[in-house]
Amino acid sequence: MSQEQKKLVEAITAMEDDFAKWYTDIVKKADLIDYSSVKGCMVIRPYGYAIWENIQKDLDRRFKETGHENVYMPLFIPESLLQKEKDHVEGFAPEVAWVTHGGDEKLTERLCVRPTSETLFCEHYSNIIESHRDLPKLYNQWCNVVRWEKTTRPFLRSREFLWQEGHTAHATKQEAVEETERMLNVYADFCRETLSMPVVKGRKTESDKFAGAKATYTIEALMHDGKALQAGTSHYFGDGFAKAFDITYTDKDNTLQYVHQTSWGVTTRLIGGMIMSHGDNNGLVVPPAVAPIQVIILPVAQHKAGVLEKARELKARLEKSFRVNIDDSDNSAGWKFAEYEMKGVPIRLEIGPRDIEKEQCVLVRRDNREKSFIKFSELESAIDAMLKDISVSLYEKALKNQNDRTYICHTADEIINVLSEKGDGFIKAMWCESEECEEKIKEQTGVGSRCIPFEQEALGDKCVCCGKPAKTMLYWGKSY
Amino acid sequence: MSQEQKKLVEAITAMEDDFAKWYTDIVKKADLIDYSSVKGCMVIRPYGYAIWENIQKDLDRRFKETGHENVYMPLFIPESLLQKEKDHVEGFAPEVAWVTHGGDEKLTERLCVRPTSETLFCEHYSNIIESHRDLPKLYNQWCNVVRWEKTTRPFLRSREFLWQEGHTAHATKQEAVEETERMLNVYADFCRETLSMPVVKGRKTESDKFAGAKATYTIEALMHDGKALQAGTSHYFGDGFAKAFDITYTDKDNTLQYVHQTSWGVTTRLIGGMIMSHGDNNGLVVPPAVAPIQVIILPVAQHKAGVLEKARELKARLEKSFRVNIDDSDNSAGWKFAEYEMKGVPIRLEIGPRDIEKEQCVLVRRDNREKSFIKFSELESAIDAMLKDISVSLYEKALKNQNDRTYICHTADEIINVLSEKGDGFIKAMWCESEECEEKIKEQTGVGSRCIPFEQEALGDKCVCCGKPAKTMLYWGKSY
Repeated sequence: MSQEQKKLVEAITAMEDDFAKWYTDIVKKADLIDYSSVKGCMVIRPYGYAIWENIQKDLDRRFKETGHENVYMPLFIPESLLQKEKDHVEGFAPEVAWVTHGGDEKLTERLCVRPTSETLFCEHYSNIIESHRDLPKLYNQWCNVVRWEKTTRPFLRSREFLWQEGHTAHATKQEAVEETERMLNVYADFCRETLSMPVVKGRKTESDKFAGAKATYTIEALMHDGKALQAGTSHYFGDGFAKAFDITYTDKDNTLQYVHQTSWGVTTRLIGGMIMSHGDNNGLVVPPAVAPIQVIILPVAQHKAGVLEKARELKARLEKSFRVNIDDSDNSAGWKFAEYEMKGVPIRLEIGPRDIEKEQCVLVRRDNREKSFIKFSELESAIDAMLKDISVSLYEKALKNQNDRTYICHTADEIINVLSEKGDGFIKAMWCESEECEEKIKEQTGVGSRCIPFEQEALGDKCVCCGKPAKTMLYWGKSY
Repeated sequence: MSQEQKKLVEAITAMEDDFAKWYTDIVKKADLIDYSSVKGCMVIRPYGYAIWENIQKDLDRRFKETGHENVYMPLFIPESLLQKEKDHVEGFAPEVAWVTHGGDEKLTERLCVRPTSETLFCEHYSNIIESHRDLPKLYNQWCNVVRWEKTTRPFLRSREFLWQEGHTAHATKQEAVEETERMLNVYADFCRETLSMPVVKGRKTESDKFAGAKATYTIEALMHDGKALQAGTSHYFGDGFAKAFDITYTDKDNTLQYVHQTSWGVTTRLIGGMIMSHGDNNGLVVPPAVAPIQVIILPVAQHKAGVLEKARELKARLEKSFRVNIDDSDNSAGWKFAEYEMKGVPIRLEIGPRDIEKEQCVLVRRDNREKSFIKFSELESAIDAMLKDISVSLYEKALKNQNDRTYICHTADEIINVLSEKGDGFIKAMWCESEECEEKIKEQTGVGSRCIPFEQEALGDKCVCCGKPAKTMLYWGKSY
């Protein structure tokens, strides 16, 4: 028995029994990752990496359409450079990996492996920006970063992860704020259109901001288990970094001004979000837009005359329009069904001798297992429509899950009751904006603030914690 | 004056005066890189990174067409893992960066930042390969690697660089050897077709092999200054790593066998090769296939009615077929000409009021400054043909340089004379295959062995060094 066959002998843990185990079963059995001997670092296998490549391609197009250019910054940051912005170093120093030796020689200054690259972009911007004609600078970088986390989980929290980090410099505060919002919207659109993943858009509270930011915007998604996933963030820095790194430009009146900056990022964590938004007890369910294989062709009774030929002919025809694969191995039909369900391929195309006689084949959807008989002549349009429908259905199902698990509460006791009766989810509640109340609710109920949503609702006029006048509505939840 | 304008005030150093300075002038003034505060690490700026993205896209297509899949391995290698293959660790340990601390804690085992990922791929392969049905594994990775070099130069030798590393595992020695050769050919084809860069294909001598390899194949290119650049390598490992890492499979007879492996890589160094193959004293000359901008449109007398509109109309039309940009800034025409020559844009398209009357525009080639007047109606076909011709011309010019600078020598004295009379270049000479002679020639003449070319010629029967019977012809040269 090959490695490939072995892994399917045992089914995956049901998510109702143990959600965490269900998750790690999927990432291993759908061939997304392998563990390595470096704790907290993972091997992203071809099937997992192909999903990331599709995510990258789609996001990169959106970044370029909004005027951004890609660059590459060094992997290392000298300790003195990291320390230039006070809040930033305080936030990151405790969780960076330090390089102390090059070959046999001890370095005169320690270098940290980038946990994020604000300091490097700032140093570069201070070199290349002089005049208002040099602005805005709209840069993005695709790279790996390292954060020395204590507890790790594949895709969700790993010591090394892949991401993109946008870093922009603008002449005015207004332009920088607009950029921060624009990129949060790009992320939210991407999540909806490409990952079929609904998100709540909002702002992080003061205590939950990025280290060094004036404001952090976030998109928050709700997973199958009712826990929230911070899926992407966009930060407005004002001129704080510009002052620390002396990034100035001469404006049209020849006056020296500081630039206003932003940064924004999403990571391989999106793959974790995709798994926990759409997966089921048979395995992954991959949204069509990022599926490495959109249609898997399975010849039925492939030893019979003409079946394999027809299956291969269909593959050659369909791969002009879709990402198509064929499995003509001698594994059993049952094994193949299970394998491609596990991998979450959106459409299974079955073709056997009787289908060929009727000039048709069978399409089976991964998401709802609906079966359709489609004439060869209508295959492209049927598949195209089906992929689009799967994409919308997945979104609607995930949105329904989010809505069903979003609860309005007016007191800490109500939060405790809702969580114990209905399980985890988003809690919407009014808040007085004091950090003390935010902290207290977390201690008393276990849910932390997720964001101050842009779409505010007036649920009441009292803070869920202290009962004093409320200023804003907050989303609360347990988080990954 | 903006940063952008400033840099053009001073011209670049002529390559005849100081080739090294000419090179660093170009990488800075064509906006390819910026230096960072980490010695030996560079910032790859948008124009430089766009060239790398085009290189990546082209190579990635070739890798996928030859059946390879992309994966991502961890950045870190535990010291004990690096040590598993004796020759490999000896080759790399002196030049790796060591991570010793995560946050405040000292690690129990040092981690090196990957200088190359054989050990990580081997560990993964030992996990996932069990049966002959799991073979071959044809993996590739795009990533950053770190080697703690003493002297560094942008693109050519940097402490961090970007590359791809292919790592494959096969059932038989023959398959692995075929793969090693196949990928060297993919590299050579890419250099010729895409970078217009001729290369000599051959095998490295025993003393010059990759640490841990049974054989290293190489492609060697000759730069403007007569120095050789190792542009890509492909290694055959036999089952050495498989034995060190216990990578076995059961064959069809259910017998346990070791796999046979290869690895192969090219790096951002290719950008350095491109610069030194085609650049001139006006700046970069970028081959059309990787040029971020293939056609730059410059409106002439753009304040006159209709000029800008027509220029923009042409851009909208041409960007359906080519990578096109327009410079409608208020910089002078002279400044613009110099700027896009510096950046090596293959074709400059000038359009002014009189051209518009005649329904034509002017195309100027970067490589030979030839000017053509082209009717609007024939623009796409003319540009397409011109880009193809530029690509071929660049190749032929570089090949002529290589041929003109390749010298046949029979003795060490001849080598010394040729070098002092004609300058650096490739030396073809016969060799007895002893490491001692290889070493001696280097000491006496300054040129080292570049490769044992696949295309052998019988130049004589005596070794260039000892005069004893020669076994093979070797290419010698000074190298980057």
